[in-house]
Amino acid sequence: MQRRQFIQHGGIAGILAAGSAPAFAQNAPVKWRLASSYPKTLDTLIGAVERASRTVAELTNNRFQIQVFGPGEIVPALQVLDAVQNGTVEAGHSASYFYIGKDPAFGFGTAVPFGMNTRQQNAWLYLGGGIELLNEFYKKYGVLSFPVGNTGAQMGGWFRKEIKTVADLKGLKMRIGGLGGMVLSKLGVIPQQIGGGDLYAALEKGVIDSAEWVAPYDDERLGLQKIAKYYYYPGWWEGSATLNLWVNQKPWNALPKEFQQVLTFAAAEANQWMTAKYDFGNPQALKRLVATGTQLRAFSRPIMEASYKAANEMYDEFNAKSPDFRKIHDNYMKFRDEQILWSRVCEEGFDNFMAYASQLKK
Amino acid sequence: MQRRQFIQHGGIAGILAAGSAPAFAQNAPVKWRLASSYPKTLDTLIGAVERASRTVAELTNNRFQIQVFGPGEIVPALQVLDAVQNGTVEAGHSASYFYIGKDPAFGFGTAVPFGMNTRQQNAWLYLGGGIELLNEFYKKYGVLSFPVGNTGAQMGGWFRKEIKTVADLKGLKMRIGGLGGMVLSKLGVIPQQIGGGDLYAALEKGVIDSAEWVAPYDDERLGLQKIAKYYYYPGWWEGSATLNLWVNQKPWNALPKEFQQVLTFAAAEANQWMTAKYDFGNPQALKRLVATGTQLRAFSRPIMEASYKAANEMYDEFNAKSPDFRKIHDNYMKFRDEQILWSRVCEEGFDNFMAYASQLKK
Repeated sequence: MQRRQFIQHGGIAGILAAGSAPAFAQNAPVKWRLASSYPKTLDTLIGAVERASRTVAELTNNRFQIQVFGPGEIVPALQVLDAVQNGTVEAGHSASYFYIGKDPAFGFGTAVPFGMNTRQQNAWLYLGGGIELLNEFYKKYGVLSFPVGNTGAQMGGWFRKEIKTVADLKGLKMRIGGLGGMVLSKLGVIPQQIGGGDLYAALEKGVIDSAEWVAPYDDERLGLQKIAKYYYYPGWWEGSATLNLWVNQKPWNALPKEFQQVLTFAAAEANQWMTAKYDFGNPQALKRLVATGTQLRAFSRPIMEASYKAANEMYDEFNAKSPDFRKIHDNYMKFRDEQILWSRVCEEGFDNFMAYASQLKK
Repeated sequence: MQRRQFIQHGGIAGILAAGSAPAFAQNAPVKWRLASSYPKTLDTLIGAVERASRTVAELTNNRFQIQVFGPGEIVPALQVLDAVQNGTVEAGHSASYFYIGKDPAFGFGTAVPFGMNTRQQNAWLYLGGGIELLNEFYKKYGVLSFPVGNTGAQMGGWFRKEIKTVADLKGLKMRIGGLGGMVLSKLGVIPQQIGGGDLYAALEKGVIDSAEWVAPYDDERLGLQKIAKYYYYPGWWEGSATLNLWVNQKPWNALPKEFQQVLTFAAAEANQWMTAKYDFGNPQALKRLVATGTQLRAFSRPIMEASYKAANEMYDEFNAKSPDFRKIHDNYMKFRDEQILWSRVCEEGFDNFMAYASQLKK
């Protein structure tokens, strides 16, 4: 397979090239392999990193090529970080919160319960020192990370029965991972870890009562609406979710500065693109779902408040245990609180009126 | 002045280079001049296009250079589009709505009353065919445009007296331009066009009773808070505002494809950066304003509804007059309405709870 024939040029090309454009146009191209946690069918999640890879090739006249591999092609979906860390691949594409088993601090790079929305998260990452703070932590794992897409606020998932009170959560078997699952377990939910491909069968057979995934555009493809009628919002465990482009420190350091810049800008451009792509696709998918019987439901205020309280308790516990968690937590939450001071005024004032006005016309 | 010594290489370099990297690394660099409508002091508005210009230079090893000039250096602030159109400069940086005098359809490229928020506008521009639709219209002026920053939702401006009812707007002399001014004139406001530098004096002397500018980060610098105590929100005429990087068609067509791609990506990256920069700066500025006596006020529901109604009447009038306006209007408003269907559910569900929760903690 051509895919296997790649030779890793990073180090040599980097040294030969060292900032001299004409010299390095004549060198063999730098070729990287990137392992993604997401299958090719999820054209927005993996689409963003495929886009960044294309941009890198285009802007360097193919002198820097990053080939994207799906889960299982090189390593399984949830071993992407390890593969980047141990140098099996130069780069990876994943969600940092898949790795909270190593340290709960891995949550912040993607999403934490009652965290920041997309705009706030971007402000923190790009202007508020978030990228630098996270990379300081990731350094322990020999990697660095670039934001490469944000999903926007995610839905709260599919439920076979209505969930009206906190008591209705008790004993509920729900497919939900990570920190959100930990918070919900404090309210009696039994969190289950099941891959996207197995969700339909698990829900149909009653192995689980409920499942959360992303939002209408992706969720519709899983077909869960055929089994579970109630579609809840918001997914407070993912008020936004940043995907990560992981890079091993060694091949990164060996890259010519120009290629480092190209990769940085390509990832940032893809970050914006992914949000726009979800925003573009979600409304139509939501309309189709509602037209075929899906019932939209908001989590009740008591459920939201109980979850918020449980999340803060969880943060207290992690802060006591992990100094890395505490350091990022304190920075992140202070930034979030200041962002909300502003966004609740003008941005939400506008959005809420537009939501109201859209109903006036009917 | 070195600035004047630039020679326009676009055409020749483009032909010589034609996709061959080594050949064109040896050519003289392509040098463009860009005229901006915004002074260097507004480090976020003009900052985004300065950033895009830096990115272009970095990613091409200085083979493509775009020098940014402030208003008055080559042409006055509001003649940027004309300067690009007639080839005085290769590129410009401005807000399309400054040019609604030529055709009201110029509104959509930046902001229209009760239009889309930042995320929605980006989805329309990048995925929904918005960029292509606008460029089809701009073609008549010999230019094309790239989004190069979005301010987010803007504030409703500074008022010396409280505005509680629609009747309070009658006879109010307000510094507000463009389509927002036209809408407000239907409610009795007397719109005034005054440059940012003259706002303070005009408000102090009572030439105007009120002035809108951008949002806390920029507004604070104008010092209007020393004269006008009431700071209203939201600025429904700018639920978001996209800045434009204009390029004359001829030098664009003469660019090697690689440079076209670099410029396109650099502008898109700067688009995201500007929003993050405003989101980063606004909360602190808002805190300082409120700490020194600024009174935040929401426009009342009746004022919002009357403005919304007046805006729709204005759209009906323009649709009847300008086929270009109608074509873009219909596409834009359909997209907006579908976006709101989705964003009012999950995104606002999350944001509104977070706003509520942020007050719980106090």
